Formats: sequence, structure tokens, C-alpha cells
Amino acid sequence: MGGDHAPEALVAGAVAAVRAGVPVMLVGDTAQIAPLLPEDVQIPITHAPEVVAMDEGAARSVRRKPESSIRVAMRLLAEGKASAVVSCGNTGASLVAAVLDLGIMRGVERPAIATVLPRSDGGRFVLLDVGATVDCKPEQLVSFAVLGAAWAEVLGMKNPRVGVLSNGEEGTKGNDLVRAALPGIEALPLHCVGQVEPTAVFAGACEVAVCDGFVGNITLKAVEGAAETVLHLLGEEIRSAPTARVGAWLAKGAIERFKQRVSWDAQGGAMFLGMKGVVVVGHGRSNAASVEAAVHQAHAAARDGLVAELEARLGAQSEE
Amino acid sequence: MGGDHAPEALVAGAVAAVRAGVPVMLVGDTAQIAPLLPEDVQIPITHAPEVVAMDEGAARSVRRKPESSIRVAMRLLAEGKASAVVSCGNTGASLVAAVLDLGIMRGVERPAIATVLPRSDGGRFVLLDVGATVDCKPEQLVSFAVLGAAWAEVLGMKNPRVGVLSNGEEGTKGNDLVRAALPGIEALPLHCVGQVEPTAVFAGACEVAVCDGFVGNITLKAVEGAAETVLHLLGEEIRSAPTARVGAWLAKGAIERFKQRVSWDAQGGAMFLGMKGVVVVGHGRSNAASVEAAVHQAHAAARDGLVAELEARLGAQSEE
Repeated sequence: MGGDHAPEALVAGAVAAVRAGVPVMLVGDTAQIAPLLPEDVQIPITHAPEVVAMDEGAARSVRRKPESSIRVAMRLLAEGKASAVVSCGNTGASLVAAVLDLGIMRGVERPAIATVLPRSDGGRFVLLDVGATVDCKPEQLVSFAVLGAAWAEVLGMKNPRVGVLSNGEEGTKGNDLVRAALPGIEALPLHCVGQVEPTAVFAGACEVAVCDGFVGNITLKAVEGAAETVLHLLGEEIRSAPTARVGAWLAKGAIERFKQRVSWDAQGGAMFLGMKGVVVVGHGRSNAASVEAAVHQAHAAARDGLVAELEARLGAQSEE
Repeated sequence: MGGDHAPEALVAGAVAAVRAGVPVMLVGDTAQIAPLLPEDVQIPITHAPEVVAMDEGAARSVRRKPESSIRVAMRLLAEGKASAVVSCGNTGASLVAAVLDLGIMRGVERPAIATVLPRSDGGRFVLLDVGATVDCKPEQLVSFAVLGAAWAEVLGMKNPRVGVLSNGEEGTKGNDLVRAALPGIEALPLHCVGQVEPTAVFAGACEVAVCDGFVGNITLKAVEGAAETVLHLLGEEIRSAPTARVGAWLAKGAIERFKQRVSWDAQGGAMFLGMKGVVVVGHGRSNAASVEAAVHQAHAAARDGLVAELEARLGAQSEE
């Protein structure tokens, strides 16, 4: 029930995912959802009478609404009746619901929100935390490194290189937090590449970039804003000359595929790491295609044992 | 003498600026520079026997090299023999040289490094600090707001809107630093728009975005990395299909102009704010065109009275 285009876009995305072979359950207001389902697709609906709005107080109102769609969905996951939760509602609200009804993994001080971004060398990288914890302690960055590396492995990146997002590579760089966290990350049984600049990360320097939730959220939104600006300027230049317009028409398919690839929604959604279950949060502006991408991402993470992988790594770390 | 393509690219950029009507002096090793000058262009050279290398210890070695090109240039500015300094060397080294030989303005606790980025609505915004002070106190963010607004005015943005870069807009958002600095910025005689997300800034929410030097440096490098990734993916898509290749050939001029507009060098360089003089630092990878852009930017700032504007605003602030 969350997101700017709910429930229509969520139901359409769920239907597309079911048609692609992913089993989906819907949670929300049955009266609104049922009429949106096509006749040839059967999707079970779990009724949830309450909705958490997308506004400022979302994270707080989650506590007061145990029958909201996000909390009912989290309980289905906690009870083993679902394998993963996908939400396009307020991220803070989803985080609070996950903490309340799902719980945090043993050995995790703070959960993180992670996302995957494309690199210019054709690879991808995991960026975390992108907003769960705004002011972090050094030991939280250390646990983010463990969580991020585990997700990267599940995504198929073998022995991922882990870097700490910074303003330079030398030991004299970094802010107080980065310099305090680095020894702990270097001591982990991971391939740590030290401090990395965002330009180097996009060029292929690592598969996991660790930062506090303030820096990560701003980085993610700066990247999104820069990509939109770049697309806008491209459109402006192409409209400026007749031959360029003809050229753009001939290159239309390529430009569409390109826009799709740089759209953050196309990568799926943001993954909660450190919860006792797989939770993916899509963009509030999600359309059906991006909801479907988020469902596939959640399905793959559940199928490939993300939670077990995280637990094994956290267990190994605490035994050392 | 600084930068990856020194002195060739710097001399070529200086020659282009002279041909465009900007008076330029060169500072560095006369034996290396003089042979690079074309016969029809006269550019005075001030000899500087030492060079600060681009490596890690640059900021420290500046102190031990009073006859390095960066320090000789700063002294020419301090003595009124030059109106502005342009450097493509190590930013930290330039900052130290400016503090040593030029000095910090009265009323400024810490200088800032500012840069201008394009917005998707066709406007531009000033981002600062992008690296002078990595761990900031709240009062430093407040002074960055004053410095950034003054530069925006000099750049022709009337009554610029000033925002504090953050992970959300509501009062509950922001990290400890942002929340502590905001009341001080809101109390300034400026058009403050509160906390702003990077996506909103790129869409046109403000003309000045204030942050600490760690966040600003990472934001700048993330934007640069994202833009390069976007260009790479576009090239990949265009190469993938024959009609797209023909289309790209027809749109070649537009795509070139577009690449030029999203190149950070094309915007000029990073401006030091809070020094007793105009100092612009270009990218270490600067080519002749980006050196010329940095020279034009420095020339315009000196001509349009950036330092006087800053002093007037700082004076007005301290009288209140």
C-alpha cells in the first residue's frame, strides 16, 4: 500500500513477477487490491486494514499501526509464511516495522540499508549504509563491511574487495570516523582495499563501498541527481539540431536501453542487511517495472540464502 | 608547474586565454616554459626554481619550498602584482600556500573550496566545502553559507537560495552537524531554504549547497564518477546496434557538446573562498581547454570583485 503509485503499480509489478515465475503474496486492503488483479492470474491477498502514509511521521506511526500492510507483511516473513518482503513505502517506516516484527540479527549492532550501483567498467558495487544510521560509530562501519561483503557474495561477486568511501586514498585522508573505523575493517577476514574515492569506485576499484548513512544517502541522491542532469543535457543537445534529432531517432533503442540501465529502479531496490529476513525497499516513485525488479531481487536473495550467509559470516567474526 | 600535463597543458591554456583577451603571467621554470610559447604571443614569466610534486606529502613540502611555483605565484597575488592565481597542482598544497603567503580573510575561521555544478533545469549551483576542512564544527558550516552566497552573487545569481546538503528535508533529518549548524544559517541575512537533498539541488532547489569538506568532496567525486559511468553506458549501447551507430554519427556534434557540458573541467576549477585573493584550482588532469576555462573563471572573479564582496558580507555579518 506504500509508494506514490500504490496499489496499482505494486499489483502490476507483482503480476509481472508471477508471470515470470516468482510466487508472490499481496498484503493490503483487499477491497482495493482484488479488482486490480487480471482474471488469469491468482495471487493470494492477506488483508491489512491499516496504511502508513508516506509523510514525515511514518516511522512513528508504524508503532501505532500493528495492522498496517507493512507490519502484517513483516509478520508473515517472521512466521515463515513468506520468504521476503518488498515495500515501496517510506524507508524509515519499513525499517521500524522490520525491527519491531522481524528483529535484528545476533551480532549486528545496527542494520544497514544497501544498494547496488553500476560501474563504468561494466561491473557493479554495493554501497552501504545509505540511510539506516546517520551518525555512526566506528564499530558500526566495521559491521557494515561484513554485511556488505556477504551481500556482494550472494550477488555473485567472489571475494569482493571492500573499500571505505573517502576523500582520498592515503592514510592522511578520511574524516575522524573513517580513520577510526579503518583498522577494524582491515582486521576482518575480507579483501579490504582501504580508503577509496567515489571516482575510483565507479571506475572499478571495489565491489563494496562502506560509509555512514548520511554520506551514503547523500552519495546515492547525488548520483541520481547527476544522472538525471546528464540525461537532461543530452536531450537538450539532441533537440538543438535537426541532424542530431534524426540521429537520436535512429539511436532511440540504444538511448532507451541506456536510460533503463542508469535508472536506479532498474537495479531493484534497497536491501536491508542485518535483519532476520530479506527485506527490499523500492523507490517511492516506483512503477510496475521497478516493482517487478525489486521482487526479483528479493526472490533471488531469499533463494540464494542471503540471511544464512550473513549469519555464517557474523558467527565466524564473533568467534575470532 | 603542477598537474599531470604540466607545463605543456598549462602554457597552452594560458596562450588561449591571452588570445581571448585575458592578461596572463606564467610562474615556473623559465627554461621549460619559454620554449613552449608561440612566437606571436608574449607572456611574462616569473621564474620559480622549485616544484611541489603531486604526491602525498605535497601539503607538507609546500612549507619547505618557499621558491616553488605555487608559493611564488601566491606572493605575486599578495603583493598586488597579480589579480588571481590559477593552479592545477595538488589542491592541499595550493591551500597551504594560500594560507602561508596570501592569508585568510578577517572574520573567516576556515577557508572553503567551492565548485559550480550544472542543474537539470539549466541553472547552476555552488557546492562547498569540497575538501578544505574534512571534520567541521557547526560555525564553520555557517561561514561556508556566507562565503558560498557571496560567490553565487558574483556569478550572477541574485539573492541565491542557500540549502544545507542533507538526507531529507524535514527537521528530523540531517546528522548531528547539520542539525547543529542549521539555526545559525537560518539566522543569517540570506535566503535559507533549510535542508536539501542532492536530488532536489540538481533539480533546482537552491543556488548554494553547504556541507562539510568530507561530504562535499565525496559528493563531487560521486557526481564525476556517475557522469563518467553514464557516458560509458551510452557509448556501449550505441556501439551495440548498426542503426544506433549511424544515429550517434548524425548526433555527433550534440553528443560532443553534451560531453563538454558535463565535464567538470569545462565549468572552470574549484574556487578558494575566504582567502585574501582569488585562487582557482583546476583538475590535476586538466587539458589546455580546462586550463583556459579556469583562467577565465579566475579573471571574471577578480574583475567582478569577489574578494570585496566577501569582505563586505563578512563585515556586515560581524557587525550584527
